[in-house]
Amino acid sequence: QDAAAGKARAAACAMCHGPAGIAAAPDTPNLAGQPASYIEEQLKAYRGGSRKHEVMSLMARPLSDADIANLAAWFSSIKVEATAPK
Amino acid sequence: QDAAAGKARAAACAMCHGPAGIAAAPDTPNLAGQPASYIEEQLKAYRGGSRKHEVMSLMARPLSDADIANLAAWFSSIKVEATAPK
Repeated sequence: QDAAAGKARAAACAMCHGPAGIAAAPDTPNLAGQPASYIEEQLKAYRGGSRKHEVMSLMARPLSDADIANLAAWFSSIKVEATAPK
Repeated sequence: QDAAAGKARAAACAMCHGPAGIAAAPDTPNLAGQPASYIEEQLKAYRGGSRKHEVMSLMARPLSDADIANLAAWFSSIKVEATAPK
């Protein structure tokens, strides 16, 4: 897993998921701080077709396992702090 | 949408997704600060079966549309700040 390579590979993701993994497009999840295993599982689901989305299915198709591991390392390396309303 | 009702309803979610939406269990996504529309879409997908997960399919089945709207309002009301590594 190489977070730096993941960050470079994530340039394509930034348009919707934002440069730091906070969603920049509507109906789009934040990826910042998500667990690496969860991100890997979802990218492989989109790549393999067990999870479908008009954009993500296309984005995931060309990804190698290394790409996926690096993307997961990158997004999970982003620290998130949550503040619930009182 | 009633975030307070959503917070109460989310007691059942806290075991895995954490009391403030930061995942407390492995391979589990953070829900804090996710867009309400995304959360609604995923809960309806689990409830309807277009998205499958051994736990979430069961958790989502009994949810009403109001439950889903309130849960989405609650989790999306949690502020998140992301700090990407340099």
